[in-house]
Amino acid sequence: MTDTETKITQAQSAALELANISAEARTDALHAIADAIEARREEILDANETDVAEAEELLAAGEYTQAFVDRLKLSESKLESIVEMVRSVAGQEDPLGKTLEARRLDDDLELYKLSVPIGVLGTVFESRPDALVQIAALSLKSGNAVILKGGSEAAESNRILYEIICEAAAEVPDGWAQLIEAREDVETLLERDDAVDLLMPRGSSAFVEYVQDNTSIPVLGHTEGVCHIFVDEDADLSMAEDVAFDAKVQYPAVCNAVETLLVHESVADAFLPEMVARYRDAGVELRGDARAREIAEMNAAADEDWTTEYGDLILAIKIVDSLDEAITHVNANGSKHTESIITETADRAERFMRAIDAASVFHNASTRFADGYRFGLGAEVGISTGKTHARGPVGLEGLTTYKYHLEGDGQLVATYAGEDPRPFRHEDFTGEWSPGRLSEE
Amino acid sequence: MTDTETKITQAQSAALELANISAEARTDALHAIADAIEARREEILDANETDVAEAEELLAAGEYTQAFVDRLKLSESKLESIVEMVRSVAGQEDPLGKTLEARRLDDDLELYKLSVPIGVLGTVFESRPDALVQIAALSLKSGNAVILKGGSEAAESNRILYEIICEAAAEVPDGWAQLIEAREDVETLLERDDAVDLLMPRGSSAFVEYVQDNTSIPVLGHTEGVCHIFVDEDADLSMAEDVAFDAKVQYPAVCNAVETLLVHESVADAFLPEMVARYRDAGVELRGDARAREIAEMNAAADEDWTTEYGDLILAIKIVDSLDEAITHVNANGSKHTESIITETADRAERFMRAIDAASVFHNASTRFADGYRFGLGAEVGISTGKTHARGPVGLEGLTTYKYHLEGDGQLVATYAGEDPRPFRHEDFTGEWSPGRLSEE
Repeated sequence: MTDTETKITQAQSAALELANISAEARTDALHAIADAIEARREEILDANETDVAEAEELLAAGEYTQAFVDRLKLSESKLESIVEMVRSVAGQEDPLGKTLEARRLDDDLELYKLSVPIGVLGTVFESRPDALVQIAALSLKSGNAVILKGGSEAAESNRILYEIICEAAAEVPDGWAQLIEAREDVETLLERDDAVDLLMPRGSSAFVEYVQDNTSIPVLGHTEGVCHIFVDEDADLSMAEDVAFDAKVQYPAVCNAVETLLVHESVADAFLPEMVARYRDAGVELRGDARAREIAEMNAAADEDWTTEYGDLILAIKIVDSLDEAITHVNANGSKHTESIITETADRAERFMRAIDAASVFHNASTRFADGYRFGLGAEVGISTGKTHARGPVGLEGLTTYKYHLEGDGQLVATYAGEDPRPFRHEDFTGEWSPGRLSEE
Repeated sequence: MTDTETKITQAQSAALELANISAEARTDALHAIADAIEARREEILDANETDVAEAEELLAAGEYTQAFVDRLKLSESKLESIVEMVRSVAGQEDPLGKTLEARRLDDDLELYKLSVPIGVLGTVFESRPDALVQIAALSLKSGNAVILKGGSEAAESNRILYEIICEAAAEVPDGWAQLIEAREDVETLLERDDAVDLLMPRGSSAFVEYVQDNTSIPVLGHTEGVCHIFVDEDADLSMAEDVAFDAKVQYPAVCNAVETLLVHESVADAFLPEMVARYRDAGVELRGDARAREIAEMNAAADEDWTTEYGDLILAIKIVDSLDEAITHVNANGSKHTESIITETADRAERFMRAIDAASVFHNASTRFADGYRFGLGAEVGISTGKTHARGPVGLEGLTTYKYHLEGDGQLVATYAGEDPRPFRHEDFTGEWSPGRLSEE
């Protein structure tokens, strides 16, 4: 076994123990981690300086961008917000041990569906060292062991943060968090479907796609967000203008920003000139289809513009003849992330929202609301454009699964089968699992 | 595009429409399918005779087993139970359009989490022609399009059943069910992660494993069921004997039958002789470890016996020193399917049930209860030993996902961000999504 294989196997054993420590022990460990990061911030900043110095050399050599180096760099205030984030995860409601269903199958035969951790999470994340802390905190809160693979450019920062986390969480079963560092380690991770239960890759679309294509482990995440806003024939045009502006300009780098604006042809003349002027004032580059360009001056959109996530102050604009054309365009070109219709007519909103296949469909609201915090999910684990397990913004619940507990007093299946079988009762009830329950009655 | 690629793409378009037809239309179509199968049973039996005749030639040539040919063969009474099954699926509660959560993010900003179909299901199933009808019925009930790939030995039976289903469900969007037939078509199916949302393979462990290893589409299913019963030190030994007998003998061919019996050393002398005699009378071959063989006569178990799903009247027996040894053995050798402890002590049951990582953990009950019907899930879609999306016996709910609907009146994220952000309310409430709701208030 290589080192990495051993680490993954250790995480697998730790996961079995971690699943059964109390909510209090997990919360206490998270507070201890927050305190330790606070206490040892000098060490962290020193390690980070080493990473940043190396990155700056590569920046000078033209290999890194300034934005990349900025993301890597920690500061007192960044560390403070990391500490706050860990305390906020600690304060979340416990996602484990919830009774999701309780059903009496027969007299003294009770079935309970309980929330439990998934097991071992595999994560590969971008250069920000805060990602390591966030992922470790979410894993611990949800009782999951975790394999952490950060970028090599953050190696020193990740090592010290990992060390601090493991030391502070000394009461948690040893081995629950594992740091892997080499690029080849990712290959090993993707192959271990015997030990890793869920992968959470973060990074470029190309990287997430690479992970999806090269593993049989379930993947939670999204490759891209090509989100649309459709301004319908009877939209409140002033509302449409504000929403479309917010969805592009408020924070263009994120996956829930709008990338294509669809405008119903009957309002295009009234809507576009003012909208275009406002975008232009904010420095947004516009790329329109032929009809949009007849109404306002903008660049010409090419075919690939309809499926591009710009992540920048660029927006594609298309005029459509009908609600149906808008729906067809979105289903063909969207990424099943977040789609919004601006309309005053309820049944047109309903048609759009039902017909669009996306994790989030909005009526008269900015696509930027698609976010775990804004949705009220507490801590956000990520946004998923997959359609199984968890979809859209994912909270801690997405890091749990369930287990069936059946309490009996010696029941046999033979009793319920064959000639004259005993019928089941199958009555849902409200109650908590306790293995002593039946004998106490 | 090959024929198969075209079929998969057609299913993808049909899925978008099928997601939005009413519950009544889906139920009506299921009743029409049941009626049509009833009305056209002569045609079905004729087609099936052709398949059976060919299979019997291969049986004579030694290529097929009698059990294989028996599974392939339809009869009037088998057809009757197929018709009943379709009507029972039609009668299930509708799994779609349920409001799973409703949350007021702010005044006039309401979030709804609604159950929706997954999209396109890909299924590959064994020789029984009833599997085609069952899978098509479950897919239609849950609003999913489906790709059906049956065995070539059932080609004629599958073709006529498929034709009858499509004709009877004429009101359902065309293309929702697609039949593919060639072995190469399976490769095509596994590659279409752009169009297929969930795979449900049925068949041998080796086949399910092959599917899991050769696709990036999520897979719902199980490779094997290596289930255990642990007879603890203070078990009611008469209960233990009945349960262990039921779990092996009542139906040994199924995945929830027990394969290894673990016995606490302190009760082994009292328990084993009678248990062994009873198994022997029922024709069960026993394979024990050295200590079990000292107490009762049986064959010797080899290492591979501890991880083998016999699916037959064979059982491995091992004596363990403690509850912890039982837990360690099960977690190391089990298949995360169903595990049962027989004990009179509540806290020992609790330790076992919490520490074992399996979809179903039982206290004083036969492992054979792990089944969608017995659990009261209504129609059973399958049993999953995966840990994400759906686990254990899976009902129609396992064929659904969810979608977030957000109703606003023009809210912008900018309002809730930056200096002096407006706070969210995040209050859960009880209500149904309706896009006209806000303007009516």
